Amino acid sequence: MKAPSPALLQQFAVIVGPQNAVTGAAELEPYLVEPRGLYHGSTPVVLRPGNTAEVSAILKLAQANGIAVVPQGGNTGMVGGQIPDASGAEIIVNLGRMNRIRKLDAESNTVTVEAGVILQTLQEAADAADRLFPLSLSAEGSAQIGGNIATNAGGTAVLAYGNTRDLVLGLEVVLANGEVWDGLRTLRKDNTGYDLKHLFIGAEGTLGIITGAVLKLFPKPKGRSVAFAGLASPHQALRLFGIARSIGGPNVTACELMSATSVGFLYRNAPQFRDPLAGKHAWYLLLEISSSRSEEEARALIEEIFVKAFEDGVAEDAVLAESLQQSKDLWHIRHALSDIQKAEGGSIKHDISVPVASMPAFLEEATALVEKMVPGCRPAAFGHMGDGNIHFNISQPVGADKQAYLARWDEMNDAVHAIASRMGGSISAEHGIGALKRHALPHVKSGVEMGLMRSIKGAFDPAGILNPGKVL
Amino acid sequence: MKAPSPALLQQFAVIVGPQNAVTGAAELEPYLVEPRGLYHGSTPVVLRPGNTAEVSAILKLAQANGIAVVPQGGNTGMVGGQIPDASGAEIIVNLGRMNRIRKLDAESNTVTVEAGVILQTLQEAADAADRLFPLSLSAEGSAQIGGNIATNAGGTAVLAYGNTRDLVLGLEVVLANGEVWDGLRTLRKDNTGYDLKHLFIGAEGTLGIITGAVLKLFPKPKGRSVAFAGLASPHQALRLFGIARSIGGPNVTACELMSATSVGFLYRNAPQFRDPLAGKHAWYLLLEISSSRSEEEARALIEEIFVKAFEDGVAEDAVLAESLQQSKDLWHIRHALSDIQKAEGGSIKHDISVPVASMPAFLEEATALVEKMVPGCRPAAFGHMGDGNIHFNISQPVGADKQAYLARWDEMNDAVHAIASRMGGSISAEHGIGALKRHALPHVKSGVEMGLMRSIKGAFDPAGILNPGKVL
Repeated sequence: MKAPSPALLQQFAVIVGPQNAVTGAAELEPYLVEPRGLYHGSTPVVLRPGNTAEVSAILKLAQANGIAVVPQGGNTGMVGGQIPDASGAEIIVNLGRMNRIRKLDAESNTVTVEAGVILQTLQEAADAADRLFPLSLSAEGSAQIGGNIATNAGGTAVLAYGNTRDLVLGLEVVLANGEVWDGLRTLRKDNTGYDLKHLFIGAEGTLGIITGAVLKLFPKPKGRSVAFAGLASPHQALRLFGIARSIGGPNVTACELMSATSVGFLYRNAPQFRDPLAGKHAWYLLLEISSSRSEEEARALIEEIFVKAFEDGVAEDAVLAESLQQSKDLWHIRHALSDIQKAEGGSIKHDISVPVASMPAFLEEATALVEKMVPGCRPAAFGHMGDGNIHFNISQPVGADKQAYLARWDEMNDAVHAIASRMGGSISAEHGIGALKRHALPHVKSGVEMGLMRSIKGAFDPAGILNPGKVL
Repeated sequence: MKAPSPALLQQFAVIVGPQNAVTGAAELEPYLVEPRGLYHGSTPVVLRPGNTAEVSAILKLAQANGIAVVPQGGNTGMVGGQIPDASGAEIIVNLGRMNRIRKLDAESNTVTVEAGVILQTLQEAADAADRLFPLSLSAEGSAQIGGNIATNAGGTAVLAYGNTRDLVLGLEVVLANGEVWDGLRTLRKDNTGYDLKHLFIGAEGTLGIITGAVLKLFPKPKGRSVAFAGLASPHQALRLFGIARSIGGPNVTACELMSATSVGFLYRNAPQFRDPLAGKHAWYLLLEISSSRSEEEARALIEEIFVKAFEDGVAEDAVLAESLQQSKDLWHIRHALSDIQKAEGGSIKHDISVPVASMPAFLEEATALVEKMVPGCRPAAFGHMGDGNIHFNISQPVGADKQAYLARWDEMNDAVHAIASRMGGSISAEHGIGALKRHALPHVKSGVEMGLMRSIKGAFDPAGILNPGKVL
C-alpha cells in the first residue's frame, strides 16, 4: 500500500481535529510497541476519532486513496494485530476517545457501549448497577472492549460465561468503504438472515472497524468462594475439575491451572506475592465457585468438592479463601503469571487449546519435546484448564543468550502446534492470529477454509485497506 | 433456474443409488408440504444421500449444470425454507439417511453427529450417557439436528443454554461447488481466523449444506422442579420472571408464557389435557428450575420463588409438580399449544422478539391493533417469556371464512412487525426467514445489511444454486 501524502494526512487530521491527530516520534511511540515487544511499527499519524461519523469519514477517505488502516484499542493484544508494519505507510485509528457507556439497562440485562470503553470501567459500571459483566483478563485495566470484541478475547470467566463472542448481542461496525452497519440489537433471539455480528467478532479489524456494541449483563452472584490447591499432575487437575463440575455444575465459574515453574517465577521476582500453601507441589489449581443465592452456598459447595477431592486422593493440599481480600490475593497470583515471565529472560509463547480430556497428554508430550529441543529450557505453563486452553510458554535456559533463544521461536511453535493439531487442538485459543501466527495459519487450516476466509475478505474489503498483513 | 433433463436426473440418481432417489407423485408428497400447509412445492426428485461424499457429488453436478438444490431435514420448518418452489425445477436433498451419531465423548462433553439425526434421538443418546443435550422444541420427535442448526432453532431451553448456535462447536459443510469444509472441531476456544461456523448456522441452507456437527453436552441436572402459575397480565409475568431470576439465578431453565386463549384452545379441542389450576386466569406461566445438586434444591428454590411471588401479589395461583409425570404433563400443555391452533380455523402467525422488558407493552399494543384490524379475531399468544420471544398468533373470528381471513396475513404481519421493529425487536426470533418472510426482510434491515448479506451469498454461492428464493 502507498503512504499518504502530506496533503492527504492533512485531510485526515481535519476529520478528527488537529489535536486528535498524533504525530511526532515521542508521541507516537506508545502506539507503536505492543506488550511483548515483539513488534515495533511505524506510522505517519495516529487518528483518534471522537465518534462513529469520524471513523466513517476516515475509512471513506482511506479507501478512496488506497491507504492502509490499522484499528487499535488499548494496545494490549498479544499477536501484533494492533501494530502497523515497518513501512511507515499505514495509519492507525485508535478508538480510545470513543469511551462512552451509552446505556445500561439493568432490567433487560444489557449495556450499550462505544468501542473505546476500558474493560475494567465496564466491569465497574455493571457492578454499580448490581450486575456482572463477566469478561476478565490480566490486561483489563487498559484493554478496550472494542479490541476485546475484535479479537474475541478469552480470559478467566469463559468456563461459565463463554468467550467475548458469547457476550455480544449487537455491534456497530464501520465498513471499509465508510458505510456504517448499525447492528446494535439488544435481542436474545433474532433469526433474520446471516449472522454478521459473529463474522466481525474475532476478525481482528480486517473486515471492518467495530465502533459500538450491545453486551449481555448477568445477575451478580451473591456468593463466591475461591480455593487454591496443590496437585501432583495435570491428570489430577482434570480429575479435580471433574469432581467440581459434578458437584458444582454451573456454579463452577473458574478453573485455572498453574505449573510450579510459573508460580515459582512470581514468588522469586515479585516478593509481594507469597505462596498460599505451606509445601511445594508440581501443579496448582485455582477453583472458583459462585452462587446466585449466598456466600454460604458457595462455601458449602467448595467444601463439598474438596472433601471429595481429598477422599479420592486428587488434591495434595488446598486453602480456601476466608475473606474477599484473600480471594483477590489468590486471583492476583493467577493474573500476574503472564507479565512476570519477562523477568526470566526470553519466553517463547503458545496459546494452545485441546479437547479438555487431552490436556494432560498434551502437557506431557509438549514438555518432553521442548526439553529435548532446548535442553535446560523451562516450560512455565498456566491457563484455563476448564476450557482446555493452556499458555504453554517456555522460558530460556538460565544464563542462555536471549536473542539466540528467541530465534528458535518459529521452530518451537511449529513443533508444539503440530502436537496440538494432532490432538484436534488450536494454535490460538484466545489471542488470535494477528501478525504473529499469520504464516502458521495455512499449515493448520485446509485450503477450503483459507479459500472461504479469503473470499469473505475480498467481499468486505476489496481494496484491502483494513489491517493488511494480519490474519490472512 | 432450469429443470434437470431426464439424463441429468439419471446421473443424480446414480450418485445415491436408485433406491434413494425418490420419484412418483405419492412418494414425493410428504417432502413437498410443510407443517402449516402454507407451501406446497414441486420437484422432479428427492435425493437421499448416505454420506458426505454423495452430498458433495450432488452439489458438484448441480453447480456444473445450474440446477437449484433445496436441502431438507425433518421437514418441520415453519417458514417454508425446506420446500421447493412450484416450478418443478428444484431438486431436494434430504439428509434423513445420514443419521449416525459418530461419537459421544462424555468426558469432554461433546457429541459428533450427522445432520440427519432426529433431535429426540440425540436427546436420548445424551441422556443414556448421563448428559444433557438441552435443545428442545415441539417438533423434536421428527426434526433433524441439521435442520435445527441450519435454522438456528430456538425452543424452550434457550434461557439457560442458548440458541442452537450456542450449542455448536464445529460443523461439516458441503459448499455450492461440492467442496467439503471440515470444521468438525471439538474445542471450547479457537481464535484462528473468521468464524465460518456461525455464518452457516441460521443461513437456512443458502450458503452450504450442513452434513455433520460437533455439539456441546452438559451435565444432567440432578433435580428439576416445574410450576404452572396463573397471573393477571404479562406485566405480572415479567415480575415473576424477575423474582425467579433473582432467587434462582442460572437455575431458572425455562420461563414460558401462555395466554388464556391459547390454553383454552387446547382444553376445548384436546380433552385429554386438563387445566392444572382450579380457577381461570388471563395468563399462565410455566417455570422450570434445575439443580445440579438435588431434587430437594430444585424444589426448595421454586418454593422460595412462589412464596415471594404470593407475598408480592404477583401470582394468583400456582401448582408445583409433585412427580416427574406431573412435570411432563405440565410441559405437554406448553408443547401442544402450537399444533392445536389448527383446530380453531385460520391462524395468522408471528414469531416476535423484543427486549424482555418490552414484552408487556408489545402484547398490549399488538393485541389492540389486531382486534381493531379484524374485529372478533382471537389473539392466542404463547412463547418464551425469558427470551423476549412470543408467538403472537391470531386465530380467525369464530365462523369467519378461513381463506378470506388468511388473505390478510401480510397486512397483519406488516402492522405487527412495525410495532416490534419500533421496540427494537425482531420479526423472526427463532423460525428464520425462509420463503415466508423473505419479502419482509428488506423492510426491517438496512440497505447496508442487505448488501453485506448479498455479498456473502455471492461469494459462497456464485451460481445461486443453493435454496434460491429463501432468505434473500
